[in-house]
Amino acid sequence: MERGYAATSLDTVAEFLGATKGRIYYYYKSKADLFFGVHREANLLSLRTVETIANSPGMPTERLRRMILAHIELLGSHSPLLRVAQQALDMHIYGSTTPDQRKLLDALVTMRDEYERCFAGVLSEGTKSGEFRPCDPAIAIKTLLGGLNWMTTWYRPGHARESGLPKRVTSEIVDFFFHGLVLRRD
Amino acid sequence: MERGYAATSLDTVAEFLGATKGRIYYYYKSKADLFFGVHREANLLSLRTVETIANSPGMPTERLRRMILAHIELLGSHSPLLRVAQQALDMHIYGSTTPDQRKLLDALVTMRDEYERCFAGVLSEGTKSGEFRPCDPAIAIKTLLGGLNWMTTWYRPGHARESGLPKRVTSEIVDFFFHGLVLRRD
Repeated sequence: MERGYAATSLDTVAEFLGATKGRIYYYYKSKADLFFGVHREANLLSLRTVETIANSPGMPTERLRRMILAHIELLGSHSPLLRVAQQALDMHIYGSTTPDQRKLLDALVTMRDEYERCFAGVLSEGTKSGEFRPCDPAIAIKTLLGGLNWMTTWYRPGHARESGLPKRVTSEIVDFFFHGLVLRRD
Repeated sequence: MERGYAATSLDTVAEFLGATKGRIYYYYKSKADLFFGVHREANLLSLRTVETIANSPGMPTERLRRMILAHIELLGSHSPLLRVAQQALDMHIYGSTTPDQRKLLDALVTMRDEYERCFAGVLSEGTKSGEFRPCDPAIAIKTLLGGLNWMTTWYRPGHARESGLPKRVTSEIVDFFFHGLVLRRD
């Protein structure tokens, strides 16, 4: 899947899953259907992970920090899948899908919206409690998640697997989001 | 080009440029070569634009703000090209290119690095002058540009063309990068 949707054969997928092609076709009608299925499972896992943190006790600042770290962690483990996911969203936007696949893609888009709402909810809570600066939570969260997702273009998963994402990099990024670039004179 | 590299025919490109296919093949050996050529021109334009701002007089905070606004502007006008560009970088990473194309892609990667260095340079200047918080400029700028580039996934170019990117959205984003999420108690 590192090579993208078009270049990934069902043989590769079967090997990745430790299954035979016949077994895969027993569950999924086509490569596209298989991909949507796997993508949905990965999204559900991500959503449950951040939802659990969002709904746990603790200050919004601390919960948002943990949600950002969880997102980076998920990026590391799902990075090839996410690249393929972006291509699937492109398909969705440009409409070259069957009606069944379109329904599944709609469900994926709904899950992505829920995922973003989890983050925006904690941000709004923190604004009410005086921890966060008043801002448009939807724009802030899209920009924040975009900044994180961009890591897949410059932070090679190979490196991450070898050494774990260095704490220095993740704390630089969290500080950037939390404190911005401008020096506080207080 | 809104449909991506694979789905864009030379006829579409010819129509977009107001040229004939014959005329295009006079200058470029293939669709890939044409794309690399157009991509290089767009990158050069972007690089010159931010370089000019980076090297102009004024406080680093003010120059960085103008560079961010210029990047958003370039995103709006080059958004389909940038989507194709990402696919080209994927090709680069996974190596399905001819030696000539690989040379051109290397030049594109060098330009991207120079582009990021322009931003990082102004950020470092501002840290020295006490305007910006001490941070790792390379990580901060990759995250900042990533957050901006992500706009192409949620901010539809159609809207932007109709109404211009609303000032409210751009100033929310600049504030997010400059002041972060956490409220300053000063």
